[in-house]
Amino acid sequence: MKKSFLYYKTILIHTLAAILIGLIIGAVDALFGRVLLTITDFRQEHLYLLLPFLGPAGLLILFLYRKLSPKSLGGMGLIFDTGFQENKHIPKLLVPLIMLTTWITHLFGGSAGREGVAVQMGAAISHTIGRKLHVQNNARLYLLIGMAAGFAGLFQTPLAAVFFALEVLVAGSLFYEAVIPCLAASFTAGFTSHLLGLEKFSVIVSDKLVFTPDTIVKLIITAVIFGIIGGSFAWCLQAAKKRLASWFPNVYFRILITGICLSLLLLFIHQGRYTGLGTNLISAAFENQTIYPYDFLLKFGFTVITLAAGYQGGEVPPLFAIGCTAGILLGNLFGLPVALTAALGYAAVFGSATNTLLAPVIIGIEVFGPQNAVYFLIVCSIAYACNGNMTIYGRQRQYQGQEWQSRSSK
Amino acid sequence: MKKSFLYYKTILIHTLAAILIGLIIGAVDALFGRVLLTITDFRQEHLYLLLPFLGPAGLLILFLYRKLSPKSLGGMGLIFDTGFQENKHIPKLLVPLIMLTTWITHLFGGSAGREGVAVQMGAAISHTIGRKLHVQNNARLYLLIGMAAGFAGLFQTPLAAVFFALEVLVAGSLFYEAVIPCLAASFTAGFTSHLLGLEKFSVIVSDKLVFTPDTIVKLIITAVIFGIIGGSFAWCLQAAKKRLASWFPNVYFRILITGICLSLLLLFIHQGRYTGLGTNLISAAFENQTIYPYDFLLKFGFTVITLAAGYQGGEVPPLFAIGCTAGILLGNLFGLPVALTAALGYAAVFGSATNTLLAPVIIGIEVFGPQNAVYFLIVCSIAYACNGNMTIYGRQRQYQGQEWQSRSSK
Repeated sequence: MKKSFLYYKTILIHTLAAILIGLIIGAVDALFGRVLLTITDFRQEHLYLLLPFLGPAGLLILFLYRKLSPKSLGGMGLIFDTGFQENKHIPKLLVPLIMLTTWITHLFGGSAGREGVAVQMGAAISHTIGRKLHVQNNARLYLLIGMAAGFAGLFQTPLAAVFFALEVLVAGSLFYEAVIPCLAASFTAGFTSHLLGLEKFSVIVSDKLVFTPDTIVKLIITAVIFGIIGGSFAWCLQAAKKRLASWFPNVYFRILITGICLSLLLLFIHQGRYTGLGTNLISAAFENQTIYPYDFLLKFGFTVITLAAGYQGGEVPPLFAIGCTAGILLGNLFGLPVALTAALGYAAVFGSATNTLLAPVIIGIEVFGPQNAVYFLIVCSIAYACNGNMTIYGRQRQYQGQEWQSRSSK
Repeated sequence: MKKSFLYYKTILIHTLAAILIGLIIGAVDALFGRVLLTITDFRQEHLYLLLPFLGPAGLLILFLYRKLSPKSLGGMGLIFDTGFQENKHIPKLLVPLIMLTTWITHLFGGSAGREGVAVQMGAAISHTIGRKLHVQNNARLYLLIGMAAGFAGLFQTPLAAVFFALEVLVAGSLFYEAVIPCLAASFTAGFTSHLLGLEKFSVIVSDKLVFTPDTIVKLIITAVIFGIIGGSFAWCLQAAKKRLASWFPNVYFRILITGICLSLLLLFIHQGRYTGLGTNLISAAFENQTIYPYDFLLKFGFTVITLAAGYQGGEVPPLFAIGCTAGILLGNLFGLPVALTAALGYAAVFGSATNTLLAPVIIGIEVFGPQNAVYFLIVCSIAYACNGNMTIYGRQRQYQGQEWQSRSSK
C-alpha cells in the first residue's frame, strides 16, 4: 500500500512537471510553426529568387552544424539513444540549430517535414528539465513527455502525440507508465500553441463506405499498397543516404551538388509543386483540386533526396502528402470513396514509414473526425503489417516477443 | 528479400488458417450464446424455482470438473500458461466442461460473465488446430487467434477482440505480428456468429460534451474512480478466493455453503436483479429505467462472491454492468451527460479490471459508436493508470520497460 501511494505521488509530481513542460514546448512550437508558415508563404511568392540557392543554403546548414555542434547532427538518432540511456547529454545548441536549419531548408524550397524540430526540441527541453528534478531513472519518461508535447504542440493532435511517443522508441511495446504525464504535457502544449495562434489542420470526411465483400477486398489491397509505400520510403531514404555518401565522400560537396540538382528539378517540374511540407498537395487532395497520378511518386522522390543530402526538418508532413495523393489515385482506381481513401492514406503511410500502429489510427481520428475510426484501425493495421518492418528511425528497436517467455511467472 | 518473402508467405498461411478457425469458433460461440440467452430468459421466468438450487448446482459443477478433467479447473490461468509455453496441452474436455458449467451457473442465477467460455473455448480450439499445422513456434500465435475469435464471436466487436488478445497476456506489450491473422479470425467469427443469429449489443450515445476546464476536471475525477473500481474488483476477487478457501478448506463444502447464502441474498435483494450477466442493468442504464445508486456495489459484490466460490463464466459482462451503473451515478452526481458517462464506465471499468488499455477504448467505439472516441481514449487511459496495476488475470505478466535498455542497439 505504501509503495502504491509513493507510485501515485511520483506520477503526480511528474504530471505537474509535464504541464510546465507542455507550456514551454507549446510556446516554442508556436514560434517555430508560425515563422515556418510565414517562410513558406514568402517562398511561394519569391520562388524563382529563392529556389536556385538551395545548394548554397545546404552548405550553410552543414557549416552551422559542423562549426557549432557536430554532435547535434545525430538528430533523431541522438534522441533515441538518450531514450535507451546510451547518451546522457543533449547539446544545448540542438534546439536553436534544428529550428534555424529547418527554416533555411524551407525558405529555399527543400522538400522536408517539420516534426523533426518539434520532437527533437521537445525531447531536449524536457530532458533538461527532467535532469534538474533529480528523480531517479526518469530519463526515458521525460524524453517521452517532451516528444509527445512537441508533436502535440505542432500538429495539435494531442492523443496521437501521446501514442506516437509511447510506441516509437521500441516497435511493438508501449511504455504505459508514461500515459498520464504524457497526456498532461500533450494537452497543455496543444492548448498553448493554439492560443498563440498555431492552427490545427482538420478535414471532416463525410464519405460513407458500404461494407460489401467487394469493398473489403479493395480496402485490403489499398492498405497493403499504403504499407508498401511507407516501407519503401524508409528503405529508399536509407539507401539514398548510402548512395550519396559513396558518390560524394565530401559532405559539403555532397549537399552542394545534390542541392543544385534538386533546385533545378524542383523548379522545372511543376514550378515548385513539390517544395516544402507538401501542405499544398494535402489541401489540393481534400479540396477537389487537380492531383496528378504521379504526385505521390515525385513528392516521395524529392523528399528522400532532400533529406538524404543533409537538409533538416523531418519526414512526417511529406509522408502525409504522399499518403493522401496516393489515396486519391487508389480511390479513383478502385472506385472507393476518394476523400476517405485519401484520409486513410494520410494516416497509413505515416504509420508504416515510422513503424507505428496506434499513432496513425488516432491521427486519423483527430484530423478527419471519429466517424471512420474503424476503417483507420483496419487499414493502418494491415499497412503496419505490410511495411516489411522498415522504419525511418534507424535507431528504433524491435521488441522481441519471445523474450518474456524465459522469464519466471512471478 | 528471401526472408521477407517467407515472412509474408507464413502470414498468408496463418491468415487462411485463422479464417477457418474463425468460422468454427463463430459457430460454437453462436451455439453457446444462444443457449445462454434461452437459459437466461428461462431463469427470469422461473426464478423462485431455480435460484434456491444455486448451492447444489455448484456441487454439480465442481463434481463434473473433478471427475472429468481436474486440470481444466485452471481455466484462464491454463490459457495464459499455454501462451507462455509453460503448458503444452489444453485438455479436450475443457471446452464442453466450461460451456456446460457456465450454463449451469446462469440457469441457477449465479452472477457471472460469459467471456470466460468464449476465450477459453477459442484458445483451446485454435491451439489444437495450430498444433496440427506443425508450423514452428506458433503456440502463442494460435492462442491469440483463438482468443480474438472467441471474444469477437460472442460480443461481435472484432477490433476490440483483436486488441484484447494482443495486449492481455503481457500487460504493456503488444504482439503486433499477430495482427493480420487475428483480424481475419475476429471478423470471420463475428460474421459467422451474427449469421447464426447472435446479436450485437450496441447503443448510439448522442450526448455531447462541452470541453470546459470544469468538465475536464470532472471527467478526470470520474476516470480515476472508474480505475479504482476496476482495480478493486480484481483485488477483491483475489482476496475473496483466499478468504473463502481459509474459511472452508473443503471445496465442495465451500461452493455449497456460499451458493446457498448467495441464492438467499440474490432472491431477497430486489428479486434476482443481480443474477446472471447483468444485461438487465445495462439495458436499464441506457433505456432511462431506474438505476439505484448502490446497483454497481451490489453487482460488484455478488459477482466477486459467485466467482470466488467456484462458479464459471468469467467477469466481463458483469464488469460492463458495474461500469455503466457506476457511470449513471457519477454522471448524475457531477452533472456530466449521463448516457455518455455510463458508456465511458462500461469501457473503463472493464479495462482497469483486466489491465488493458486499447481493448476498452475500441469496445467503446464499437459498442457506442465512434463519435466519442476521444473521450474513451482519455478516460480509459486515466482509469488504466489508476487501477493500482491490479488484474483479474492472476497469470498475466508485466512487461518490464527497463529490460530492453540492456540490449544492444543492433
